[in-house]
Amino acid sequence: MQAIAVLASGGDAPGMNAGIRAVTRSALERSAVVWGVEDGYDGLVNHRMHPLSSRSVSSIMQRGGSILGAGRCEEFLDLEARKLCVNYLREHGVEGVVVIGGDGSMRGAKELHKLGIATVTVPGTIDNDMPGTSLTIGCDTAINTAMEAIDRLKETASAHHRAMIVEVMGRNSGYIAVQAGITTGAEMIITPEHPVELSEIFREMELAGQRGKRHFIIVTAEGAPLSAPALTERINAADNPYEARFTVLGYTQRGGSPSRLDRILATRMGVAAVDALWAGKSDVLVAWQRNGIEVIPADLDAPRANPWDDTLDKVQRITTT
Amino acid sequence: MQAIAVLASGGDAPGMNAGIRAVTRSALERSAVVWGVEDGYDGLVNHRMHPLSSRSVSSIMQRGGSILGAGRCEEFLDLEARKLCVNYLREHGVEGVVVIGGDGSMRGAKELHKLGIATVTVPGTIDNDMPGTSLTIGCDTAINTAMEAIDRLKETASAHHRAMIVEVMGRNSGYIAVQAGITTGAEMIITPEHPVELSEIFREMELAGQRGKRHFIIVTAEGAPLSAPALTERINAADNPYEARFTVLGYTQRGGSPSRLDRILATRMGVAAVDALWAGKSDVLVAWQRNGIEVIPADLDAPRANPWDDTLDKVQRITTT
Amino acid sequence: MQAIAVLASGGDAPGMNAGIRAVTRSALERSAVVWGVEDGYDGLVNHRMHPLSSRSVSSIMQRGGSILGAGRCEEFLDLEARKLCVNYLREHGVEGVVVIGGDGSMRGAKELHKLGIATVTVPGTIDNDMPGTSLTIGCDTAINTAMEAIDRLKETASAHHRAMIVEVMGRNSGYIAVQAGITTGAEMIITPEHPVELSEIFREMELAGQRGKRHFIIVTAEGAPLSAPALTERINAADNPYEARFTVLGYTQRGGSPSRLDRILATRMGVAAVDALWAGKSDVLVAWQRNGIEVIPADLDAPRANPWDDTLDKVQRITTT
Amino acid sequence: MQAIAVLASGGDAPGMNAGIRAVTRSALERSAVVWGVEDGYDGLVNHRMHPLSSRSVSSIMQRGGSILGAGRCEEFLDLEARKLCVNYLREHGVEGVVVIGGDGSMRGAKELHKLGIATVTVPGTIDNDMPGTSLTIGCDTAINTAMEAIDRLKETASAHHRAMIVEVMGRNSGYIAVQAGITTGAEMIITPEHPVELSEIFREMELAGQRGKRHFIIVTAEGAPLSAPALTERINAADNPYEARFTVLGYTQRGGSPSRLDRILATRMGVAAVDALWAGKSDVLVAWQRNGIEVIPADLDAPRANPWDDTLDKVQRITTT
Repeated sequence: MQAIAVLASGGDAPGMNAGIRAVTRSALERSAVVWGVEDGYDGLVNHRMHPLSSRSVSSIMQRGGSILGAGRCEEFLDLEARKLCVNYLREHGVEGVVVIGGDGSMRGAKELHKLGIATVTVPGTIDNDMPGTSLTIGCDTAINTAMEAIDRLKETASAHHRAMIVEVMGRNSGYIAVQAGITTGAEMIITPEHPVELSEIFREMELAGQRGKRHFIIVTAEGAPLSAPALTERINAADNPYEARFTVLGYTQRGGSPSRLDRILATRMGVAAVDALWAGKSDVLVAWQRNGIEVIPADLDAPRANPWDDTLDKVQRITTT
Repeated sequence: MQAIAVLASGGDAPGMNAGIRAVTRSALERSAVVWGVEDGYDGLVNHRMHPLSSRSVSSIMQRGGSILGAGRCEEFLDLEARKLCVNYLREHGVEGVVVIGGDGSMRGAKELHKLGIATVTVPGTIDNDMPGTSLTIGCDTAINTAMEAIDRLKETASAHHRAMIVEVMGRNSGYIAVQAGITTGAEMIITPEHPVELSEIFREMELAGQRGKRHFIIVTAEGAPLSAPALTERINAADNPYEARFTVLGYTQRGGSPSRLDRILATRMGVAAVDALWAGKSDVLVAWQRNGIEVIPADLDAPRANPWDDTLDKVQRITTT
Repeated sequence: MQAIAVLASGGDAPGMNAGIRAVTRSALERSAVVWGVEDGYDGLVNHRMHPLSSRSVSSIMQRGGSILGAGRCEEFLDLEARKLCVNYLREHGVEGVVVIGGDGSMRGAKELHKLGIATVTVPGTIDNDMPGTSLTIGCDTAINTAMEAIDRLKETASAHHRAMIVEVMGRNSGYIAVQAGITTGAEMIITPEHPVELSEIFREMELAGQRGKRHFIIVTAEGAPLSAPALTERINAADNPYEARFTVLGYTQRGGSPSRLDRILATRMGVAAVDALWAGKSDVLVAWQRNGIEVIPADLDAPRANPWDDTLDKVQRITTT
Repeated sequence: MQAIAVLASGGDAPGMNAGIRAVTRSALERSAVVWGVEDGYDGLVNHRMHPLSSRSVSSIMQRGGSILGAGRCEEFLDLEARKLCVNYLREHGVEGVVVIGGDGSMRGAKELHKLGIATVTVPGTIDNDMPGTSLTIGCDTAINTAMEAIDRLKETASAHHRAMIVEVMGRNSGYIAVQAGITTGAEMIITPEHPVELSEIFREMELAGQRGKRHFIIVTAEGAPLSAPALTERINAADNPYEARFTVLGYTQRGGSPSRLDRILATRMGVAAVDALWAGKSDVLVAWQRNGIEVIPADLDAPRANPWDDTLDKVQRITTT
């Protein structure tokens, strides 16, 4: 290939920069030109991409966010717009595109593939809800961030005998909630896949109060039936041993210097993505599977990581009693 | 003195444990008995205090929260209840009490003093809004926590060309907001002392958009006229170059391992508080003043730290342009 | 089983407390008595163990180190001493022991097993050099710690155009060095498995100088042929474009609040260890394998994690050019 | 003034970038041209400076190190070389220079002043050993870094009943050692100003052993009579209740994202430095004094911050017993 392009799409995730760096340097090593597309598919639609050198991706691995920007793009949903994007890419000699992002981003890559551009998707989203891979870039850092925040909240909840309702990110997935909850010893974890009745919450609070626990931490996923503020209101309206407060961790979970796991995952996946392009592959996903990193067909219906299996359920139940 | 008591009252603040440790070890050094009162004045009302040894305050300096709990106490507002508290203290030989907390806590200390118990207040609140001292325990850590969170938010805001509205704590004071805003290069800072018109916000956004800034950060104090969600709604309802999102940092600002400044301030103030009791003082505050730590009369009307003077206003205006 | 014991042995590793907590609560859930042995096998030899309650392991998951202590024990190498240990355990009704530690610890567990005590080893060492498992508790946190330190060192090395030689832990394994090196974009990584000639180092320095790199980072494992000070001396004695300084990261890599990966790994492995005891197993290791957590025979000759395979070699070479 | 220059000199310190940013934006606000000199005085000698824009100092406040480099320069000690530097500055219209650095840097600024260039020094060094100011930029971050490292070391020392000898930076000053020692509850602190006899160390170890302390932490300044390795050897050669290990924290103390105190100090001082130049001042230091920030004559013999006064001595003695 003479030239490739790389873009980050959807919500940004820590480690995206490590991925951009690895893609860029791997392709430069093969003497290709590398174009950095700005702000996801929007940069294709609005003709904003610039060449990347080894120097332009220097010292970016430790930074959160994405030096190329990220985001969704409505215009790209239109076929005519996509055809113009392909023209734009071809004018610059671009034969292959590496897309770093979530399932929506993979859907876009699939469309480019249909129009004759080779595409490889690298899974980058904090939510770990991507079809075909058991791990996505950004998820480890986001869980560590949420975990450290809950460690702090526990201290202040203990000082005041409170219930603390902590809402974490994850869109429709409870992955971050489950992991952050277990690693902080949260008394309850509420996720879209595993909602909990109010009556059960109240019963557990009652038991915790009897055991003399100084705090009651509930980690709740953003996709859970009740938002943190709504749940807090319900708890305080009832007769419970703990007064409740809530915290919505929000966008802080997206930022921050990536963990070593996210950096190494992104670096390896970025190298693998370029290998795949040069091996003539297209419409594929770089996935984390049992045997390590594998390049598999991009399939929007492949199974996703299961945040909450029977083992974890038992682990949580036992260890927080 | 034969025995003293120590309590933490009001909202917890990082560094309270360092204060409890210093008070305890200083009094033990003078061969006094030290009683740790649980959950602020509530422990006096409900007869919950226990003796502290050198070992019981070992390895607590680096922990957030308060090993004695904290909090407000409605019952203590009643004179008869307070008299019973004094009886309870006298039964245990307690002649002096060190209270770590904010202005409400100092008010309580004043009432104990009136009933014949010697009291010294050590200023502990993240809000830095305490009469008579230019610095309170917990404030440095809380600002560092808010600042680090905003550093992260900036990364994700940049990746998406967003305005990010960040609400920080501080009750009626803008101290945390001003400090966190300047140290993160926030485009705007909105505080109770220095509210900003919507029209001015919109104008600054317009200018920032023209200059090509990838993000627009507004740090807003919890005491500001508009809450972060309300402000975000107003911004998105108008025609602005940035789409706005908000994050309410909330209780994470209370927790966390204290900074070296909070640890050393609390340690020195705790030692000074015990010195003051042994010097026969009562109804006093351990304050940070120009000449360092001083013990001054507890005066609820003394001036508080000024979060936002002309110099800072200029500094912010110039450095974020 | 009526009673079990748990001990941490060898060097301490972040996550050991999460393991102790999970073992304790799992066994309590089965109504067994749980004895915490102090300071590894030494506590068996010198009769120091105490019963653990659910409360005694509360809020320890987020703390580094080991609440039970750790360490090696010379006396335990003697058969007669070990027989007395078994007597001591039997006197307290202990039928099974969970040992958290490295390969030396597993060797000790094997000896107890031979004397009729059921044993399960949980792999806990920052070095990730344990036979039979591809991941050990503590390794993720240690790498993150080393990585963050190197991120900092890079900043100061850049400001001064220096070569910085950073020695990380790992005993005879280069695992930490390889991971910390790749995730910080280190120019060279030197490990016991993959030593590098001085001439090659000098050549790479020369090339980096020609490319105008402001720093040259070498991550070296403690098991590498030359220590960091010795290597630094050699570099500065030769004619190189960078003046070299060294830092030995040392024991800071052992401490610190465990990462979410270490917490969840330790929690799951602790639960699995107790399951294994109740399933009648002995002389086994709880291992991380392709299919997740598995309980396998304790085999001192099983293969260890390979820190440096061909893929990583390529990844490092390409991405740091 | 039509144009000014800014440089960072000596060892780098966290917060230098915040200072560079504030100087640049303040001078741009006054419509001056701002030259960034590379690598301290070396950039003047070797004609390496480039114009700085508002954008070139964007998002640097949160980064450690110095975007302009730093360092010492032998050639600048020569008068003829300095005269050429002044010519170089005049050719570019530079009338004033802001120097961020320690006492050596201020000495250089004094020499430029003698040759007719207006100079203002901003105190930037982690050692807090600068004449005329009680606080320097970088010191707060360095102490926080050392403190957090010692917190970690304490955990592992406790797990192994060890003495841990931790050497921190500070050149000839014990400031970092004293502050890091007190805020971690170190059993001993050894500084150049306050050396300790070996016999006293042994006696304290003996007492700590008798009281059952699980660790014995000694924080020692790099300027102390014995290095950490030498002291460790002496301790282990004698008959002491603790086996000793050492860690030299080294260059990690220089790096890292600056604390809010260093960021705000550097920002305010940078603004004050430009104000001073425009007020026609030269040969001055921006100092932190009792009344806040003041601009005072640059005096190499002015008193420095006293790391260890009687109060701190008492505080340390009492609180670590």
